[in-house]
Amino acid sequence: MKEAIRVTVWNEFLHEKTKPEIAKVYPEGIHGAIAKHLRSRSGFEVRTATLDEPEHGLTDEVLKGTDVLVWWGHAAHEKVSDAVVDKVCNRIVSEGMGFIALHSAHYSKVFKRLMGTTCFLKWREAGEKERLWVVAPGHPIAGGISDCFELEHEEMYGEHFDIPSPDELVFIGWFKGGEVFRSGCCFHRGLGKIFYFQPGHETYPTYYNQNVLKVIENAVRWAAPVKRPAPVRGNVQALEKLS
Amino acid sequence: MKEAIRVTVWNEFLHEKTKPEIAKVYPEGIHGAIAKHLRSRSGFEVRTATLDEPEHGLTDEVLKGTDVLVWWGHAAHEKVSDAVVDKVCNRIVSEGMGFIALHSAHYSKVFKRLMGTTCFLKWREAGEKERLWVVAPGHPIAGGISDCFELEHEEMYGEHFDIPSPDELVFIGWFKGGEVFRSGCCFHRGLGKIFYFQPGHETYPTYYNQNVLKVIENAVRWAAPVKRPAPVRGNVQALEKLS
Amino acid sequence: MKEAIRVTVWNEFLHEKTKPEIAKVYPEGIHGAIAKHLRSRSGFEVRTATLDEPEHGLTDEVLKGTDVLVWWGHAAHEKVSDAVVDKVCNRIVSEGMGFIALHSAHYSKVFKRLMGTTCFLKWREAGEKERLWVVAPGHPIAGGISDCFELEHEEMYGEHFDIPSPDELVFIGWFKGGEVFRSGCCFHRGLGKIFYFQPGHETYPTYYNQNVLKVIENAVRWAAPVKRPAPVRGNVQALEKLS
Amino acid sequence: MKEAIRVTVWNEFLHEKTKPEIAKVYPEGIHGAIAKHLRSRSGFEVRTATLDEPEHGLTDEVLKGTDVLVWWGHAAHEKVSDAVVDKVCNRIVSEGMGFIALHSAHYSKVFKRLMGTTCFLKWREAGEKERLWVVAPGHPIAGGISDCFELEHEEMYGEHFDIPSPDELVFIGWFKGGEVFRSGCCFHRGLGKIFYFQPGHETYPTYYNQNVLKVIENAVRWAAPVKRPAPVRGNVQALEKLS
Repeated sequence: MKEAIRVTVWNEFLHEKTKPEIAKVYPEGIHGAIAKHLRSRSGFEVRTATLDEPEHGLTDEVLKGTDVLVWWGHAAHEKVSDAVVDKVCNRIVSEGMGFIALHSAHYSKVFKRLMGTTCFLKWREAGEKERLWVVAPGHPIAGGISDCFELEHEEMYGEHFDIPSPDELVFIGWFKGGEVFRSGCCFHRGLGKIFYFQPGHETYPTYYNQNVLKVIENAVRWAAPVKRPAPVRGNVQALEKLS
Repeated sequence: MKEAIRVTVWNEFLHEKTKPEIAKVYPEGIHGAIAKHLRSRSGFEVRTATLDEPEHGLTDEVLKGTDVLVWWGHAAHEKVSDAVVDKVCNRIVSEGMGFIALHSAHYSKVFKRLMGTTCFLKWREAGEKERLWVVAPGHPIAGGISDCFELEHEEMYGEHFDIPSPDELVFIGWFKGGEVFRSGCCFHRGLGKIFYFQPGHETYPTYYNQNVLKVIENAVRWAAPVKRPAPVRGNVQALEKLS
Repeated sequence: MKEAIRVTVWNEFLHEKTKPEIAKVYPEGIHGAIAKHLRSRSGFEVRTATLDEPEHGLTDEVLKGTDVLVWWGHAAHEKVSDAVVDKVCNRIVSEGMGFIALHSAHYSKVFKRLMGTTCFLKWREAGEKERLWVVAPGHPIAGGISDCFELEHEEMYGEHFDIPSPDELVFIGWFKGGEVFRSGCCFHRGLGKIFYFQPGHETYPTYYNQNVLKVIENAVRWAAPVKRPAPVRGNVQALEKLS
Repeated sequence: MKEAIRVTVWNEFLHEKTKPEIAKVYPEGIHGAIAKHLRSRSGFEVRTATLDEPEHGLTDEVLKGTDVLVWWGHAAHEKVSDAVVDKVCNRIVSEGMGFIALHSAHYSKVFKRLMGTTCFLKWREAGEKERLWVVAPGHPIAGGISDCFELEHEEMYGEHFDIPSPDELVFIGWFKGGEVFRSGCCFHRGLGKIFYFQPGHETYPTYYNQNVLKVIENAVRWAAPVKRPAPVRGNVQALEKLS
């Protein structure tokens, strides 16, 4: 019996509390919508955490018990403490926790530190149509997804998106207003696997879209840690005779 | 309940029949040794096929029923019919069958056609020590494998190995005689996933080594097809108004 | 003084001879338009070759004297002899000649053999607008190109484009009708560098567009061979004592 | 006439001043040895900078006038001010300055920040033999280099080296003691190109080796910035009608 993947869905959870029109879209928060879907699928143990909780809900114990961390943030990136960012990055790179960065999490402290670039991009909030195209049809994150799917209303994110070349590019987004975007990007950093997925502006019901939820679910399965001994680093003896 | 992965282990199966010293190492053939291991693990349905069978054992029905094809060949690459090569390549690229090319299968018709390069390399048959190092510690094919593992006797394969840059490089081999080799390489071609794994000269008991068997098992799981609708190609109508 | 790059611009040169409306756009052929631009720039020695010439204009002598081969073909891929294809591929992979595949050359014998995949795609001939976005802003092929540039009328080529993941993805195309395309793709195969560039349907004046010409010029410079000894392959002696 | 590439060779320049045996190897400093070679080759304007100079010799004016920065550091990574690191990283990622990280610069602040990983590795100081193999024979950084070259005495650096997968892997190192290493690695970050090159322990005359010098020279040429308008980012208007 395969063990369940322990997922923590993190959300800054601000817009939903301060803006009624957003609360209406996500009455249980964006984290709630995503967690609800994952809980409905087999093979996951799901919890949530938010900015306002002690240590943003990401205590050592929670992190240690998290195989994959899903992250949504937008307005409060700077309020995430550097101590927590250090721990999250360390848990990803050195211990293999997966990390799913959603939408505006492109500009979160964790994602920017993992990328080493500015992670800046073009954007426009006009509720325009986006169509996401699969460019890696054999990739597990594209499982169950057709050639493309549409989101009637999304925030535009456009190139050039200042990230390293993704190790695997799974989706490219087309926007009505004329831009394109690398919308689904895989990265390997240390022992950890990272997936960036662009859809999910807070004013639209993106996280109820069945394709979006399927992609997130696939990404969580893909990003789960691999079991193997930790790499040995530092000063070592020769394995062969040197003379 | 996850469905079993249907694996076909193909072997040209010549050396084992003509050379007693090799028959001694692999009394049931190289395919037999690999199939035995996979059968001992959960989640696989395993069959074998060999060169001398009709259509080399790879009939339309067998191919259709194969999720991942493991391939060992050396002396008889040219005896594999082009018709079978066509079908195997099509099943990989257009239908997503996984393909695990072992050792001298670097020079098989299927692998060369998938790569588009000569696939030539340096080699030496001196029974020297090889040590395989993990360079992608978060990759599922490295699951359960330590920093490195040794094979007391292997054929040397050395760079430059004329392949496209692997989409993911998992192992690098160190050889006693002074060479290195990209020994574990992942490629994505169309819907299919391909893994090349260098160890496995017929005169050594490589396919009884627990690390080697674990890597092959991991690779088969990694290469299993993803379920999704086949891509639509050809002439299409516009999805948006053109004027 | 840096040596000139010897470029051969190959064109099947059929549409221009049989269709007056195309002859009007390219009175000297597509090859003529491209060659004219390259000749106006410093550092190139340019010749052209076409399908109807003996050996398609690609004799051993011409190939040996070609550093980078630019290729446009559409209607007559099957008329290119396998002997010439063999020589061209060998010159690329084993001797380092660069290869620039333009537009419908995605389906040329040479390109398909180098890729190992079907190279099939979606397409629509509706003269719609395309906008090409730079996604690798530090890449030499993007030199002198702004964030994006537009082509008022192009044939749509859409994903999924069945190629291996490009080693470097430089341009993504946006199409008015709703599709995206990996429009500028770099590949390394053996000693050779390959660039696929999607614009260039024969009915539009694409090869007079200054951005398109600049990209082709950049690509030729990028694809020029590197001078170094040919790799040694085959059976070799040990470089270190084996016992 | 092509413009000269403006190179700044930076060295922490401590060992050479405090340890006579190292001063003997590099009487003009490691930076001096590298700068001397580059000055002997056409197409470069070379200056040097060291840790003890004001702003470590990397003032705004120097950085602005630097196309490619070569970096050697070992014992004093922590003494490099964060302000200078910020500026160097910004000049690379946002303005396209090339960066060549030599040997123990794998652990410099700049390199670690660009990578987003720990950049840790195995190491051993035993003066053992290293042999560097070319695995990307068509890459400009391999220009003029044979299949492999040897360094009689080097510090061993071994896998797993905790870096992102290189965008292009050019060299793999073989060590007498049994390890391998990704010794020549290209990365693209923002507008900048980065090359990590492993040889160069301060106690050995590595930076007089003609192959090593040739690789550094090639890398500087490869890493020179590409001229094009800076990417536009931030809030933008639609390029097409949204309704």
